[in-house]
Amino acid sequence: MSLPVRVGILGGGQLARMLILKGHELGLQMHVLSSSSDDPAAQVTGYHHVGDPNEESDVRSFLRAVDIATFESEFMDAEMLAQLSRETKCPIRPHPDVMAQIQDRLEQKALLLEHNLPTAPFYPVKSLSEARRALSALDGKMVLKKRRFGYDGYGTFIVHSAAELERQAQTIENEPNGFIAEAFVPFRRELAVMIARRRGSEFAPEKKQKKMSRRRFKNTLALPLVETHQEDSRCLWVKGPVRLRGEAKLVRTLEHLLDAIEYEGILGVELFETKEGLLINELAPRVHNSGHYSLDASEEDQFTIHLKAILDLAFNQPRLHTPGFAMLNLLGVSERVPRWSLPPNIHFHWYGKTKNRKGRKMGHITALARSPQQALKQVVAARNQFDV
Amino acid sequence: MSLPVRVGILGGGQLARMLILKGHELGLQMHVLSSSSDDPAAQVTGYHHVGDPNEESDVRSFLRAVDIATFESEFMDAEMLAQLSRETKCPIRPHPDVMAQIQDRLEQKALLLEHNLPTAPFYPVKSLSEARRALSALDGKMVLKKRRFGYDGYGTFIVHSAAELERQAQTIENEPNGFIAEAFVPFRRELAVMIARRRGSEFAPEKKQKKMSRRRFKNTLALPLVETHQEDSRCLWVKGPVRLRGEAKLVRTLEHLLDAIEYEGILGVELFETKEGLLINELAPRVHNSGHYSLDASEEDQFTIHLKAILDLAFNQPRLHTPGFAMLNLLGVSERVPRWSLPPNIHFHWYGKTKNRKGRKMGHITALARSPQQALKQVVAARNQFDV
Repeated sequence: MSLPVRVGILGGGQLARMLILKGHELGLQMHVLSSSSDDPAAQVTGYHHVGDPNEESDVRSFLRAVDIATFESEFMDAEMLAQLSRETKCPIRPHPDVMAQIQDRLEQKALLLEHNLPTAPFYPVKSLSEARRALSALDGKMVLKKRRFGYDGYGTFIVHSAAELERQAQTIENEPNGFIAEAFVPFRRELAVMIARRRGSEFAPEKKQKKMSRRRFKNTLALPLVETHQEDSRCLWVKGPVRLRGEAKLVRTLEHLLDAIEYEGILGVELFETKEGLLINELAPRVHNSGHYSLDASEEDQFTIHLKAILDLAFNQPRLHTPGFAMLNLLGVSERVPRWSLPPNIHFHWYGKTKNRKGRKMGHITALARSPQQALKQVVAARNQFDV
Repeated sequence: MSLPVRVGILGGGQLARMLILKGHELGLQMHVLSSSSDDPAAQVTGYHHVGDPNEESDVRSFLRAVDIATFESEFMDAEMLAQLSRETKCPIRPHPDVMAQIQDRLEQKALLLEHNLPTAPFYPVKSLSEARRALSALDGKMVLKKRRFGYDGYGTFIVHSAAELERQAQTIENEPNGFIAEAFVPFRRELAVMIARRRGSEFAPEKKQKKMSRRRFKNTLALPLVETHQEDSRCLWVKGPVRLRGEAKLVRTLEHLLDAIEYEGILGVELFETKEGLLINELAPRVHNSGHYSLDASEEDQFTIHLKAILDLAFNQPRLHTPGFAMLNLLGVSERVPRWSLPPNIHFHWYGKTKNRKGRKMGHITALARSPQQALKQVVAARNQFDV
């Protein structure tokens, strides 16, 4: 390829910010569409476009100004994006059709079943009566999730009894897109894995292709499994790597899925580890909080991998730098201006958000150590130094 | 500390660019003063100030807009910077007085001698007759270096004979700042080391201070010794780490020098390895090409270390990720638009320069391997993939 390639990011939060920082390293011209020049991503590039990533005319102008675009959230109007991409001849990757399929929890479940990926039993729910039938079929306990636009616990609630369901009657009847009712999964722990695919039309390095094994240049890769820990439905920490018997098979099956839907980019996969094995909780067609550790712990990070994947640049299976790593989100606990004494034994990433508030992801820290558990101890200890 | 801290960089080249990228990670608000929005550093921040870093009024306005400033080149008007720093009450780190001392090769030599640091014999040269005496005292072969504003071989020439000296008569008589004449050093190889010092007034993490050993919180650190290879007076590659008997003593002596002059920031030290031991070639009071490998090979990189040092934030002695690393500069060979197939086994850093030209530093690549030599082989092999 030859530069500059103009890469546009729809949305200006921390995921966009970290994509932009890694894009700069690769010499890509990193553009961002977001509403304010104070946004985390807007601060870190000379190519900020003021506009609303959900507004048709703003997105149209933006797509005309870049060579390829990607997004930091799958909760967008996928149909509009597909239409604008055709109109402006600016590719959006992953493809908006894939975004549409994954943002709808019912379609996402169908996709998983079609590819023989294990997931919790579920029923579509469009009305209170369907919810009642689901509760009974799922033995009196279930998780209700909005089919569309739920995230970080928002739009998701656990129903423990028929009486509890009746109290949610209004919510259920008022939701235009409906729900899915999922069996409650008594998991041992939650895991996650990042998996990437590129088109692979361009093998590289061209001149050395024959000398290299096929394995090194396959068009998919997976980062290691990690354990994730949620509090109040928000990711608090991640540690890894986790080694599991079923890992290789799961990754292979996921790779087949990505090949089948011609996925381009990186994808976050959230998992439950249960007595019976691994179940897929949900997919996120983008860089993901559970992959932030890779900025410091891995030879190549999820942001670089995503950019390479959408641009169809060759990637390698990256090696980990240490036997253990942990990442802790710095979540706001107040609206104070954050303060800290930066501990020297951790890696610090701050998102430049202009306002602190309870539960908001303000930054994250990572530690590298001889074991995942030791790394976790370090980030938890370091947390005290931050008055967020 | 609490954010945002506004950090200003004087100058918009690749060193400023990489400082800015690492500053963003730390959540610093990274400002840059440079003449064009196309400059490598200007592209990677939302806080670009158009202006000339050598122009008094531009620098004055810039210093008023930031909380602390640093520079990517020591060849500036140090006296003007000192004056403007006082006037605007905006600290510049390293201090402009240190810049003044180091940018003058004669004063730099005096500094080295004062601190018992080994360096090649030299004579100040202000006229042709002094140059003749120096040549005779140095056994008929010497290196003439402009006292000020010479870099990358520019302003430096080797004199092999009296006749050759006479041919340079005009140049010598016309140079207002004079020269130093240095003994020609028949070195085995060239080495370099990055060394950093912070004020150390703030120990961190405050709450755990007692538990940690003093060693971990000393206010200086040195990255490993590396071998550097120059072609046409330009750095082509760097590999390391190099382990040498005299290393620890040299680092200690350098640390004493930094403490004595109350240095704040990182400093590049270029060395000659000779039969008789190590000699210091020159000092650069800033991040340095020989330290670029640290972005990929070290737990903490020279840019982050420099920012922490000027902000007096605690740093740790960083560990290397692998037993070997190598960095290769991608130097322009033409004015073509560069093209490449990005090899997946190397780390790629591109500076976003809008014009290619012969000898220009356009980017660099790094490889990590089991030995320095193996890493060097990888970057040299990868070089073929770049049509710069």
